[in-house]
Amino acid sequence: TIYAVTPTYPRPAQKAELTRLSHLFMLLPHLHWIIVEDTNATTPLVRNLLDRAGLEKRSTLLNIKTPSEFKLKGKDPNWIKPRGVEQRNLALAWLRNHVDVDRHSIVFFMDDDNSYSTELFAEMSKIERGRVGVWPVGLVGGLMVERPLLTEDGTKVNGFNAAWRPERPFPIDMAAFAISMDLFIRNPQATFSYEVQRGYQESEILRHLTTRDQLQPLANRCTDVLVWHTRTEKTKLAAEEALLKKGQRSDGGMEV
Amino acid sequence: TIYAVTPTYPRPAQKAELTRLSHLFMLLPHLHWIIVEDTNATTPLVRNLLDRAGLEKRSTLLNIKTPSEFKLKGKDPNWIKPRGVEQRNLALAWLRNHVDVDRHSIVFFMDDDNSYSTELFAEMSKIERGRVGVWPVGLVGGLMVERPLLTEDGTKVNGFNAAWRPERPFPIDMAAFAISMDLFIRNPQATFSYEVQRGYQESEILRHLTTRDQLQPLANRCTDVLVWHTRTEKTKLAAEEALLKKGQRSDGGMEV
Ligand SMILES: O=c1ccn([C@@H]2O[C@H](COP(=O)(O)OP(=O)(O)O)[C@@H](O)[C@H]2O)c(=O)[nH]1
Ligand SMILES: O=c1ccn([C@@H]2O[C@H](COP(=O)(O)OP(=O)(O)O)[C@@H](O)[C@H]2O)c(=O)[nH]1
Ligand SMILES: [Mn+2]
Ligand SMILES: [Mn+2]
Repeated sequence: TIYAVTPTYPRPAQKAELTRLSHLFMLLPHLHWIIVEDTNATTPLVRNLLDRAGLEKRSTLLNIKTPSEFKLKGKDPNWIKPRGVEQRNLALAWLRNHVDVDRHSIVFFMDDDNSYSTELFAEMSKIERGRVGVWPVGLVGGLMVERPLLTEDGTKVNGFNAAWRPERPFPIDMAAFAISMDLFIRNPQATFSYEVQRGYQESEILRHLTTRDQLQPLANRCTDVLVWHTRTEKTKLAAEEALLKKGQRSDGGMEV
Repeated sequence: TIYAVTPTYPRPAQKAELTRLSHLFMLLPHLHWIIVEDTNATTPLVRNLLDRAGLEKRSTLLNIKTPSEFKLKGKDPNWIKPRGVEQRNLALAWLRNHVDVDRHSIVFFMDDDNSYSTELFAEMSKIERGRVGVWPVGLVGGLMVERPLLTEDGTKVNGFNAAWRPERPFPIDMAAFAISMDLFIRNPQATFSYEVQRGYQESEILRHLTTRDQLQPLANRCTDVLVWHTRTEKTKLAAEEALLKKGQRSDGGMEV
């Protein structure tokens, strides 16, 4: 089983994003979806979406709201509003409590707005016990592709091509790796943290679990791009705001 | 069969978009994908994507480049660069030549960056011969949802809630309707045109095929939102541009 952990929060495009993501789960029977809503309670929108996709038995719906003190608006240069920290940690706690450690399984952190190919999950299935698999990610860090650099024989990672903060212990995106579940059991201290600099969440979790030397290169020796860090435009709602001022709305009684 | 017509053009996120769109075709066996590339020749990127998705037999790949005179950069207030006109017309010509008119089939114009649910295609299957089906579209025209307004008995469209250019004959988005193929055979003059104002492409094609009165309301009397007009952010590639200036690139030998 591959456990895909998705933090998600309410905004106009949320249902659109989760809908297109759900198609991957409908296609791939060995995937289990852990959705963690950034809300005070789970919402009918997400619950119904899982039901309509037929994923009741292959999903877990959790919720935890990001504390408002961490939703910073200020311009502190070394820290930004961390995204999904609380949610991913709740999923890790759930996994540590519920997963049968004797069965090999994989944990992947899957944001709700990226684009994933089905082939990516076939690659993840190759991750060995005790290891972290890595691969390229498209359209991230200001580059067409951020990727691990390998030794000549293609078996080990000996560098990264990141342009943004290449000095990070693991200068890769959240979408660039997946983790054998046994590593989380063996390393109970491994969690995400608010106390790290921008761009260091990946390094924060990985430093507890592996070393560069132990990473398992996947995706055709890290030459295939199977996931892309797409971002969706903020929805423009000028006409809706004009309606709201008149006490009206376009979506009365409807779920968008 | 439902023929989904998708114009598409080269840009960094193209493969990401088409990859997530391909999942719908992998899930729905009665869909046929007509991709029309806005290029001088079909590209390996799109060809390989169709092959890897197993869609060789359920897809048609065409190409036609938008003439550069229509890729306007000026600020003419009444006209904008039309998007996908040439491509959709080529697909219509192909359909008129290749589809067996005795078999009922449906034509849908499916942009490559919107979000579609599988349920939308179940609704389209209900479109009757000689009719155009309509439904709500989320996140378009400055509203949470743009939708047809129905008569009390829910059988006919008697208005629209559009805020943007409500005076259009059919003030709806390209994603808001699908068309019984026989209408295109009976009305050979129905095509898209460069000679219409911004936002009038939908009205231009529909005015040849139907009247407001004949529209077939779908999606639970036009109360379910099954498609969203999402847009993907332009990819930021500052680090890549810096590399290119040095004669380097992140994606040498790789397809992103
Ligand atoms: O306040 C927030 C902001 C983001 N997220 C989720 O955290 C993940 C990463 O956020 P985002 O995609 O905005 O980050 P970026 O694209 O900048 O990496 C996504 O699954 C979001 O839905 C969240 O749960 N709460
Ligand atoms: O030069 C272009 C611009 C757009 N398109 C395609 O035309 C459709 C509509 O374009 P877009 O999504 O940019 O329009 P909007 O989101 O503004 O409605 C999409 O499938 C695009 O891939 C195209 O073929 N050539
Ligand atoms: Mn994102
Ligand atoms: Mn679009």
